Amino acid sequence: MLTKLIPATGWLRNYPREHLSGDLNAGVTVGIMLIPQGLAYALIAGLPPIYGLYAALVPLLIYALFGTSGQLAVGPVAMVSLLVASGVSALAPSNSAEYIQMAILLAFLVGTIQFLLGVFRFGFITNFLSHPVLSGFTSAAALIIGLNQLKHLVGLPIPRSNNVFEIVGYVGSNFADIQPQTLLIGLSGIFLILLVRMFSKRIPGALIAVVAGTVAVWMMDLDSVGVAIVGTVPAGLPVPSISFISIDMARELLPIALAISLVGYMESIAVAKAFASKNKTSINPSQELTALGLANVVGAIFQSYPTTGGFSRSAVNDQAGAKTPLASLVSAAIVGLTLLFLTPLFHFLPKALLASIVMVAVVGLIDFAEVRFLWRANRTDFALLLLTFASTLAFGIEEGILIGVSFSMLSFVYQASRPHVARLGRLEGEDVYRNIERYPDAVVDDDIAVFRIDASLFFGNVAFVRDRLYTLLNDEKDIRVLILDLYPVNRIDSSALHALFELNELLAERKVYLLFSGVKGPVRDAFKAGGLLRVVGEDALFPKIHLACAKARTLANAYLEEGNEE
Amino acid sequence: MLTKLIPATGWLRNYPREHLSGDLNAGVTVGIMLIPQGLAYALIAGLPPIYGLYAALVPLLIYALFGTSGQLAVGPVAMVSLLVASGVSALAPSNSAEYIQMAILLAFLVGTIQFLLGVFRFGFITNFLSHPVLSGFTSAAALIIGLNQLKHLVGLPIPRSNNVFEIVGYVGSNFADIQPQTLLIGLSGIFLILLVRMFSKRIPGALIAVVAGTVAVWMMDLDSVGVAIVGTVPAGLPVPSISFISIDMARELLPIALAISLVGYMESIAVAKAFASKNKTSINPSQELTALGLANVVGAIFQSYPTTGGFSRSAVNDQAGAKTPLASLVSAAIVGLTLLFLTPLFHFLPKALLASIVMVAVVGLIDFAEVRFLWRANRTDFALLLLTFASTLAFGIEEGILIGVSFSMLSFVYQASRPHVARLGRLEGEDVYRNIERYPDAVVDDDIAVFRIDASLFFGNVAFVRDRLYTLLNDEKDIRVLILDLYPVNRIDSSALHALFELNELLAERKVYLLFSGVKGPVRDAFKAGGLLRVVGEDALFPKIHLACAKARTLANAYLEEGNEE
Repeated sequence: MLTKLIPATGWLRNYPREHLSGDLNAGVTVGIMLIPQGLAYALIAGLPPIYGLYAALVPLLIYALFGTSGQLAVGPVAMVSLLVASGVSALAPSNSAEYIQMAILLAFLVGTIQFLLGVFRFGFITNFLSHPVLSGFTSAAALIIGLNQLKHLVGLPIPRSNNVFEIVGYVGSNFADIQPQTLLIGLSGIFLILLVRMFSKRIPGALIAVVAGTVAVWMMDLDSVGVAIVGTVPAGLPVPSISFISIDMARELLPIALAISLVGYMESIAVAKAFASKNKTSINPSQELTALGLANVVGAIFQSYPTTGGFSRSAVNDQAGAKTPLASLVSAAIVGLTLLFLTPLFHFLPKALLASIVMVAVVGLIDFAEVRFLWRANRTDFALLLLTFASTLAFGIEEGILIGVSFSMLSFVYQASRPHVARLGRLEGEDVYRNIERYPDAVVDDDIAVFRIDASLFFGNVAFVRDRLYTLLNDEKDIRVLILDLYPVNRIDSSALHALFELNELLAERKVYLLFSGVKGPVRDAFKAGGLLRVVGEDALFPKIHLACAKARTLANAYLEEGNEE
Repeated sequence: MLTKLIPATGWLRNYPREHLSGDLNAGVTVGIMLIPQGLAYALIAGLPPIYGLYAALVPLLIYALFGTSGQLAVGPVAMVSLLVASGVSALAPSNSAEYIQMAILLAFLVGTIQFLLGVFRFGFITNFLSHPVLSGFTSAAALIIGLNQLKHLVGLPIPRSNNVFEIVGYVGSNFADIQPQTLLIGLSGIFLILLVRMFSKRIPGALIAVVAGTVAVWMMDLDSVGVAIVGTVPAGLPVPSISFISIDMARELLPIALAISLVGYMESIAVAKAFASKNKTSINPSQELTALGLANVVGAIFQSYPTTGGFSRSAVNDQAGAKTPLASLVSAAIVGLTLLFLTPLFHFLPKALLASIVMVAVVGLIDFAEVRFLWRANRTDFALLLLTFASTLAFGIEEGILIGVSFSMLSFVYQASRPHVARLGRLEGEDVYRNIERYPDAVVDDDIAVFRIDASLFFGNVAFVRDRLYTLLNDEKDIRVLILDLYPVNRIDSSALHALFELNELLAERKVYLLFSGVKGPVRDAFKAGGLLRVVGEDALFPKIHLACAKARTLANAYLEEGNEE
């Protein structure tokens, strides 16, 4: 029980010694990676750099206690940082105390939503964000993030914008004012990071670039010629506080908190599942949601903005040998030590270098492979990807994701509202009934129609089934008995019961008998509780199709004789 | 083609003479019914009574041209009138010119939305309003409508409210000020209408009450003692105009327009389907949506507020013999003649009588039978009904329907995200494979697992299937071959393809073979286009399960021998 609520109590007690070196190595590697990334992602979120380190501390500790993935690296990520910037910048002036308060409150709200969704096992709702939508949205968001870092890379005061054309236009018309030293540092940073990555993904290229850039600025006094630097970074661990809580602000932030909760969880769960399957272990999706929620709630109290499990750091974590969340504890320790002792070293760190770290990171998010794949595999999904991509660029972040989700949802409802219904025929010489579309030789009677309903019946799909049966009855006036094979039906709700009552009434008016076969226990119980069993009669239910068909033959023949007698 | 776009061109050209008397009789009956109802429902909407007659004119003509139901009676209805009042009263002072403009603009917006949904065949989206939610919402709305008419019935200036307790409280604390003559007229009206209805549903009880009440007020000069009367009603047909169009207002009204579009369509389509099946004809749901949309758009131009097909008038229409939309044309003619010549007669009509008409109408909307039914049949759906009912009363109309839709949607997604996946076993001595849950005797191998997926695979349900298979592979380490029987799968989208790629990779890592059986044409095409066919190999696809199993046996045995040799 305790192990279920706090998985750490399980793996810590029986910690396998052979995992230790891998976990330590991975923890240190990711910890070192987190420092430049944290500072850089805070810039995306529009926050002072120190908040990126705060977001890389407490959330990791909490996730390590409650999470179930040994490889997932929780912390600040680019996409969520962009969503924070996009949501909060509409409500508060950037760099104001109010802006910071809102970003932290957002983490608290996101965490609360995720925690509640996890406790009530609502993780399945992320199913309605389809792969093409997520891919199109991510690519557009990556473009917006990258272009918004351009101001740091070229040293121009470009206003923050979700409109990529505005940004490019601004750079074009202010080309002469570009700060050459800044640009040189930024481009060198990109070059250096890419170069190091070509050799090994585990060498912290970003950290090397950060050290080199900081030393260069310090030695050549570049900040005096206009290269923007990070400046004084406060030392020490974040002080716990709940003074950020404000009901009025919470109300304003709720829509964006909802979006971040879902996008953050989707990113995290996808990564966690991928590495769990690679390591032949398993994760618990609901517990993951709860753990992320707690990481955000407790993180907020320790001044963290919204965090989630990120792809690139988790990949590094896995490659460096992480097997249990102990790795995350080690990473958090590295960040904690940095906050305590190393913040003075960040003074001369040029912002252009942080921008180059972001740009290299987000280029990897633009998913060209998926575009090519969909072009070949599925043109509808290809169109959906392009639509989401274009809407996000044209209308903005929240609008883009809303349009994407709406279209996913529509297609979801459309698919789910059309269950498979098969008309069955008898195989020659056998008591076996099969779908006549798959077995065109199967024999179908003029006066007996047999249908198999291949899904549980509920309000969402019952209209389709009913319309299909009504069309049949209108088209084939000779039908005297309708047999519904319900063996694939596991559940039936009240809307479906209503539809069956209606169908029964309609059939009675037309003097058509209604029989059922393969009705399972729970469905039979629902028939009984709803009173349908009494109306159609116990003897209308048969265990097998061929028994129902034998009865149907008797009924149809009796009807025929009756007609002849009249 | 023309008949499809304008169904009237079909039935008018080949109009069957035998339908004429029924259509005429029904048209006149409904026309007479529409006059008091139109005046009364305008009161619910918070509009001057004349707008109820405008809503009973042009929309009927347009529906008759484009609609496909011979029995559906379009016009002002109680529920939609309430939604109009609830939506518009928050934005404009009641009885102001702006209020009227907004109500008409709302009809235009509702019509545009419905028309577009119809053209793009999006009628299926109403599937996500489940029966219990709609029933709970309707009952609560009926209570709110009825109680909001209390002010006219008792002659007290009760402020409009969606909070039933406020209304009851006001009457309680102002009991002494109740206008006795007004109350007497109102109660007599209710009594008279119910009495007439007991004899026959086709005698226009409301009209009799209206005539009696008007004559009584006029002869006894009751308006001078404080009985509120309708007053001067302008004569003449509504003048076409598009001056109501305002982009700013449209933006404010959009959410409520969306709600009215869906609720209105749901009410209408349910009624149309019910009477089509009773009359053994059929309707076209998408064309119905288009027709309702056009009725509202053109109606708005002729000063109509939102309309839809109503249950009680359609029932009267059907009972009186309506067979084609000609009946609606006749009803519209009656309303038109009334507008031209009879409006002066409405001067002394007491508002209390209109309130009594509304109250009798809405009591029928409170669905006690469904509450009892659900208590017996399905406790979950019972709880859903109560929740929607209580939310609507506690939080208001729009909030209630939003909560109901959200819960329907959640339950929809939950159901649709859990497709049926059956593990199959071989029946002793046969080449037939069956669900081991239904055939416990079926033989299952240790090293070969056969699964049948009983639904088309798409982004919404693929996570569930994948998790199910992963769990199996983690639990049963002996499995060497996994066979997926895809014969119930008719379509497969790109998200599902991704999942199969992933599964294939995971299996390859674990040295488990993946075979498919029963892959249909469209699914095979998707496999090919997406490149999956090349990856798994053409020879991994088998037409029947037993052929795949034979191959699996060979592969599993080969693996075993290989293991022994090592």
